[in-house]
Amino acid sequence: MPVNLTPPLPEQLLPIKGVSLGIAEAGIKKPGRKDLLVIALDAGTKVAGVFTQNDFCAAPVVVAKEHLSNPDSESSIRALVINTGNANAGTGDEGIAHSRAACTKLARLLGCDSHQVLPFSTGVIMEPLPLEKIVAGLPSAIANLQADNWFAASQAIMTTDIVPKAVSKRISLDGAVVSITGIAKGSGMIRPNMATMLGYIATDAALSQPLLGEIVRHAAENSFNRITVDSDTSTNDAFILIGTGQAGNSTITDNTSAEFTALQDSITEVAIQLAQAIVRDGEGATKFITIQIEGGETSGECDRVAYAIAHSPLVKTAFFASDPNLGRILAAIGNADIDELNVSRLQLYLDDVLVAENGGRAHGYREQDGQRVMKQSEITVRVVLNRGRASATIWTCDLSYDYVRINADYRS
Amino acid sequence: MPVNLTPPLPEQLLPIKGVSLGIAEAGIKKPGRKDLLVIALDAGTKVAGVFTQNDFCAAPVVVAKEHLSNPDSESSIRALVINTGNANAGTGDEGIAHSRAACTKLARLLGCDSHQVLPFSTGVIMEPLPLEKIVAGLPSAIANLQADNWFAASQAIMTTDIVPKAVSKRISLDGAVVSITGIAKGSGMIRPNMATMLGYIATDAALSQPLLGEIVRHAAENSFNRITVDSDTSTNDAFILIGTGQAGNSTITDNTSAEFTALQDSITEVAIQLAQAIVRDGEGATKFITIQIEGGETSGECDRVAYAIAHSPLVKTAFFASDPNLGRILAAIGNADIDELNVSRLQLYLDDVLVAENGGRAHGYREQDGQRVMKQSEITVRVVLNRGRASATIWTCDLSYDYVRINADYRS
Repeated sequence: MPVNLTPPLPEQLLPIKGVSLGIAEAGIKKPGRKDLLVIALDAGTKVAGVFTQNDFCAAPVVVAKEHLSNPDSESSIRALVINTGNANAGTGDEGIAHSRAACTKLARLLGCDSHQVLPFSTGVIMEPLPLEKIVAGLPSAIANLQADNWFAASQAIMTTDIVPKAVSKRISLDGAVVSITGIAKGSGMIRPNMATMLGYIATDAALSQPLLGEIVRHAAENSFNRITVDSDTSTNDAFILIGTGQAGNSTITDNTSAEFTALQDSITEVAIQLAQAIVRDGEGATKFITIQIEGGETSGECDRVAYAIAHSPLVKTAFFASDPNLGRILAAIGNADIDELNVSRLQLYLDDVLVAENGGRAHGYREQDGQRVMKQSEITVRVVLNRGRASATIWTCDLSYDYVRINADYRS
Repeated sequence: MPVNLTPPLPEQLLPIKGVSLGIAEAGIKKPGRKDLLVIALDAGTKVAGVFTQNDFCAAPVVVAKEHLSNPDSESSIRALVINTGNANAGTGDEGIAHSRAACTKLARLLGCDSHQVLPFSTGVIMEPLPLEKIVAGLPSAIANLQADNWFAASQAIMTTDIVPKAVSKRISLDGAVVSITGIAKGSGMIRPNMATMLGYIATDAALSQPLLGEIVRHAAENSFNRITVDSDTSTNDAFILIGTGQAGNSTITDNTSAEFTALQDSITEVAIQLAQAIVRDGEGATKFITIQIEGGETSGECDRVAYAIAHSPLVKTAFFASDPNLGRILAAIGNADIDELNVSRLQLYLDDVLVAENGGRAHGYREQDGQRVMKQSEITVRVVLNRGRASATIWTCDLSYDYVRINADYRS
């Protein structure tokens, strides 16, 4: 069961002027599961995105990047089409053709150009995309396009997720009320590198295209790029930011303005909540772990220490067992490949408990204090390297029987 | 249960002239478990070793490296003392003092200098070494020192190992019969970097100290450094090669001689068998996987692809489930961070079955062929990168429920 994660309430999700969402059961996944989502955008909406760095990036990622990079279409994207149940990754040239065809079919139904459509897929890798099912499902998805469909949309993009993930936020900008709503999916194959497996945030704020791009990169770097469930970077990761510009604020064009900062902070906060929801709903997760590294020479080396801890199966199983076998964390730190790391200078804390210093167990550390923290469902691991002023924070979860069960059963 | 791994037969293990082994139950582990091993060496025996690269390297590793680096003692190491049940890692200055004290006590009992003793520990990290139990156990270990005690020694160094690991080999060198016997332990926290968690190989061949060092590095690089169970590099990894020089061959001093090559090949073969035994006995392992990468630009990039596959939890759970969900292997290859990798040029084979090429599923690949191979207990994953002439092979295992159970239960 997810760690302290409740489903969003449909009525808490704010519609975004200029965005409507339609879902369908296209029969790609099991019968009765919504598996197709169309997001339609008003003319003039700006879109920016970041995508997986996996070399085997999926066909829809190739096509979406191509459509986004067309300078003429910068602010002319009119629709997104998203299917679950099949990733259309590792599918070669045929996969690319399938993704283009899905765009073309939707464009025809909506009366726009196929370059104005962005395709996304998630699910099993290296199986042919069932294009005909997607095409057959498009009319019913279009038929129920509605502005207040964000909750159904968050359900439609789930794969092994237990809980749908959606967050809204409202801020005041320049006298105008600006709304931000985001949805995301992801539970396994989660170690995003530039973005995570399908996240979409829309706002009605008006801002320039370059600033939209700046915000999507900033938000990804501080949210989806700070999480890991199992160290596996997906072939389909994509995080898309949509700005419809219909809130009535004067268009933001200056990235030093207070309005820009307020908007960027709010969008990043929505992205962080979605990213943390993915970890809380990590496959088999029973614990939500924050890993905080301080006093590094560079943020890069703080990241390496953080991920060395987060990716260690031995650390992850100790969390699952609530076992304060904390020497495993020291071993993981020692594996982070940090140049000239002096292990006798660092401190390891579990929440407020000082566990290790001077190269070993801290004087005064008592097993029962470690045990008390390990039993919690939310734990912060804090490592102070004492060699500089850089820091980094990431979020992860434990490794349980259920992770193995879910991934041994998937597909069957 | 280990994958196709039977315990060695005591009578198959060759004694090595100049080496005697004594074991004891020192009460460090559970009652009734042998947990202390003393290896005594005749005067004139040469010893060389390689050790973990983990920054949190254990106290005995620090002390053993120090004793081995003393130029006066190059060929004067007279004993090894090895305990299980406690790693003496993450124990700070006190741990170093404990390791030195163990050497001093054994040296006194054997009538040598403390610098002539090498200490080794394996077990839980960040708990104080129970020095008094080790000291109390030394006399009974010394009392049963025998040349034909290799089998008992292989049992005494086990931790979560199910099967003891020991291999012997006899070759003819220069008219003399040379024997090689090795033991190793390891099952979890296995991703050796320069050596693995306790491997010892002894030979009675006569060779110079520099060549002994050359062989230990060569053997480690081609055996223990080619395996991974769970990507966690231990704090205590050590691989020691002992040459007693009592076989009667003329001392080998030329690393281009046929004798050197024959000896190095045989020792490496023993090391490979021990390394593979560790993977076969990997925590929770049900499959033994060989990962073979060919056609790379450098062996380094072949290694990266191989480990990206071997460390992917999703690939490992698919093997556990015998599920040919082979797109996960493509995703792992895509995560190996290879510069300008053209995924449409590579081929993926499962044993003899061509699974993927041209960026996707191979024409003619049938699910039942993948299924057939995935059901086997021994599987070779072969990736042909088609961008150069370098290659690399590593060995790994799957990720099962039992890995989680063993590591969630360990210590309790």
